[in-house]
Amino acid sequence: MRNLDNFFSAKNVAIIGVSRDTRKVGHVIFRNFVDGEYKGSVFPVNPNAEMILNKKAYKSVLNIHEEIDLAIVAVPPVFVPKVLDECGKKKIKDIVMVTSGFKEAGNMALEKKTQQLIKKYKMQMVGPNCLGTFDAYTKLDSLFLPRYRLQRPKEGGISFVCQSGAVGSSILDLATKDGYGFAKFVSYGNAMDIDEADVIEYFGNDDKTKVICLYVEGVVDGKKFMDVAKKVSKKKPIIAIKGGKTTEGAKATISHTGSLAGAAEIYSGVFKQAGIIEVNSLQDMFETAKMLEKCMQPRGKRTLVITNGGGYGILSTDAIIKEGLSMAELGKETKKPMKKLLPQIAQTNPIDLLGDASTERYKTVLDLAMKDKNIDIILLIILYQTPLVTTDIVDTVVEMNDLKKKPIVVVSAGGEFTEVLKNSLEANNIPNYTFPENAVRAIKNLVDYYGRNGK
Amino acid sequence: MRNLDNFFSAKNVAIIGVSRDTRKVGHVIFRNFVDGEYKGSVFPVNPNAEMILNKKAYKSVLNIHEEIDLAIVAVPPVFVPKVLDECGKKKIKDIVMVTSGFKEAGNMALEKKTQQLIKKYKMQMVGPNCLGTFDAYTKLDSLFLPRYRLQRPKEGGISFVCQSGAVGSSILDLATKDGYGFAKFVSYGNAMDIDEADVIEYFGNDDKTKVICLYVEGVVDGKKFMDVAKKVSKKKPIIAIKGGKTTEGAKATISHTGSLAGAAEIYSGVFKQAGIIEVNSLQDMFETAKMLEKCMQPRGKRTLVITNGGGYGILSTDAIIKEGLSMAELGKETKKPMKKLLPQIAQTNPIDLLGDASTERYKTVLDLAMKDKNIDIILLIILYQTPLVTTDIVDTVVEMNDLKKKPIVVVSAGGEFTEVLKNSLEANNIPNYTFPENAVRAIKNLVDYYGRNGK
Repeated sequence: MRNLDNFFSAKNVAIIGVSRDTRKVGHVIFRNFVDGEYKGSVFPVNPNAEMILNKKAYKSVLNIHEEIDLAIVAVPPVFVPKVLDECGKKKIKDIVMVTSGFKEAGNMALEKKTQQLIKKYKMQMVGPNCLGTFDAYTKLDSLFLPRYRLQRPKEGGISFVCQSGAVGSSILDLATKDGYGFAKFVSYGNAMDIDEADVIEYFGNDDKTKVICLYVEGVVDGKKFMDVAKKVSKKKPIIAIKGGKTTEGAKATISHTGSLAGAAEIYSGVFKQAGIIEVNSLQDMFETAKMLEKCMQPRGKRTLVITNGGGYGILSTDAIIKEGLSMAELGKETKKPMKKLLPQIAQTNPIDLLGDASTERYKTVLDLAMKDKNIDIILLIILYQTPLVTTDIVDTVVEMNDLKKKPIVVVSAGGEFTEVLKNSLEANNIPNYTFPENAVRAIKNLVDYYGRNGK
Repeated sequence: MRNLDNFFSAKNVAIIGVSRDTRKVGHVIFRNFVDGEYKGSVFPVNPNAEMILNKKAYKSVLNIHEEIDLAIVAVPPVFVPKVLDECGKKKIKDIVMVTSGFKEAGNMALEKKTQQLIKKYKMQMVGPNCLGTFDAYTKLDSLFLPRYRLQRPKEGGISFVCQSGAVGSSILDLATKDGYGFAKFVSYGNAMDIDEADVIEYFGNDDKTKVICLYVEGVVDGKKFMDVAKKVSKKKPIIAIKGGKTTEGAKATISHTGSLAGAAEIYSGVFKQAGIIEVNSLQDMFETAKMLEKCMQPRGKRTLVITNGGGYGILSTDAIIKEGLSMAELGKETKKPMKKLLPQIAQTNPIDLLGDASTERYKTVLDLAMKDKNIDIILLIILYQTPLVTTDIVDTVVEMNDLKKKPIVVVSAGGEFTEVLKNSLEANNIPNYTFPENAVRAIKNLVDYYGRNGK
């Protein structure tokens, strides 16, 4: 297994190609280090500058006195061989190559020369043509996008392996807004050296990573990918989306990352065999990751719907059946006391707590449902718009959420008031969804993952 | 056609059953009138109170001196016959019956008695067991949910006919947060008198309504529905979601609104024949409504993708092909000048403007694409995270958006910075989507609607 530690926790980082132009990639990376919370030291390299952002600049890595663990390279392609040669002489083993203009632009000479240098100096390289790496815990952050434009997510359990920098970065940004927590992120671009399988294997052994997301256009080495994914998916879930599944989409991948995208069916087959959860949209990937980060293994697929809005109960039921899950039948241990305590509520699934549902009513039913062995998963719909649902519904659900028993998944559909309560539930590790259909699709992926991996 | 004007612009409104308990339905409705911007007069009725919220209360509508155009009834079911009888004597013709406990609760005697009174006094009734009506222009608002919990949307072109109060209200709330504009809203509940077809017909003739959304569990009168929908869908789009499409879901509709949900296939057939766009999730309904509210009729389904993130171009292409749209081929009038002005950009579809795309580059390509007769629709992906996209990209897109030529649809995926620019585009009538797959699904519905209705 490759040791990728320096990409996430290097002590001394050199940034090669730090322009004084504030909009240039190298400058933005350096500024993000200067402004950021990363604890290590950073050394800007620019042959034509003495000082940048009030810090001493170096003409070459060879002028830096300290040992360097990681070099981030953002020079024009023509300077890449010289820069790598100097890195080799300086004994820098780990490189993030942000620069583009290799095979994806038809420059096969540069491609070959770079490969030779990596081999010669026994280097490891992320890229070229990539956005680099990000660690939400150490704050090592080589993304060349300004923080005011791209927010960085908080600490959490999702790690993302992404062939496309744009997809990866926008998802990080969006995830931050929506309150998702991340562990590590790698945009690996052309995968000249380190490929998606290397990163997946490393994330498989990373304690902070609870679930791995993958956007891939073309796998570099099919057998290696399969071996690694099979092994890792037994330990933690891998969710993948394949770009270029159609012939037309595949054509576009060639000029993008130089990948030759294989037939859709082949990829779907490989994903299935490797225990990978395949999704068909970015939204599904995102929403499934949240579910798998927060939820325990359910015992089965029997789902109970509890709602204070009849229409939502019906739409959830439709979705559960369409996705191949099943509607749980309430056991006697639930029906009897429910009839006694709440005679106005029918003992059916969905359980409609009615428009005048109070927090207390939710609590009574949730308590019974958590104990009922006929129920594997609870889909809880809370319309906070109704006056008798008090805000301590949040405390009630958090208290009831016993991770040793069964997953609780919440549908919270609404505006600002709903958002506040929803965020509070998510902060307590309970996944929330705006639409019932999306919640059910994520539950389906949860059930499938644990079913397929024979746990 | 029924005249439903009073439900949206009555001059004098009586609210019958205004409790002094601030959490009771009648009280919330009254408070919403007192706090709100509605211009008409409101008269609270409560047999046991002299004053409520510092306003004179009336023992019965018969004690009100002024003529009343609309009565909103929120009394316990047992008082409904007496209240309706008094309304009849007061010559109130239009009633919103919020009260529940009719056929959906098995109370057939009350159901029958109420029907008799409506007939006797030649009344029109929305409900019972409903949330009432809302007009974003006049601000007449009988929704019994506090405004701090449920935000009311701004003025716009979407009108919503909803059998489920919960679905309708949460969608209004969510739509407000997301900046959607509405015209009118009706939650019609059990549809004892006014049914979904009556409302659709009325909205068909309403100038403010550009697109009609429908959530329905069971249609009351199939033939009437079909006749009305056929007629209206030729004038403006109707987007429908059917609750209870599965056997399990259908069972749940009986206790909800007392509807007997028919087989899924029958409904899908009826929708298709009536020119209605059927969607399978609330999110799709929502996102399709935005597209149809803002976009003109495209000439065809040939879609051009312009992006500054390669991965997004690929995923969009996949989605376009999967949804049965087609990738536009660039005409000579685009290819030639594009090659000259932007030699670094391949003249393919998707057009990848690359990670260093500037606003100017967007402008050049967008200008050519707007003129190209081989392109029917433009799907524009803007990753605002990259440093060279300046904020005046918004002005550029707005300026280029010529509603006589072709629709521009934007994918804006990101956090807070992206949200600001996205909202600015939406305020200028350009629909935005977070995920490319969702944008393409909505485009597909746009193309289908105009195709199917032979425009």
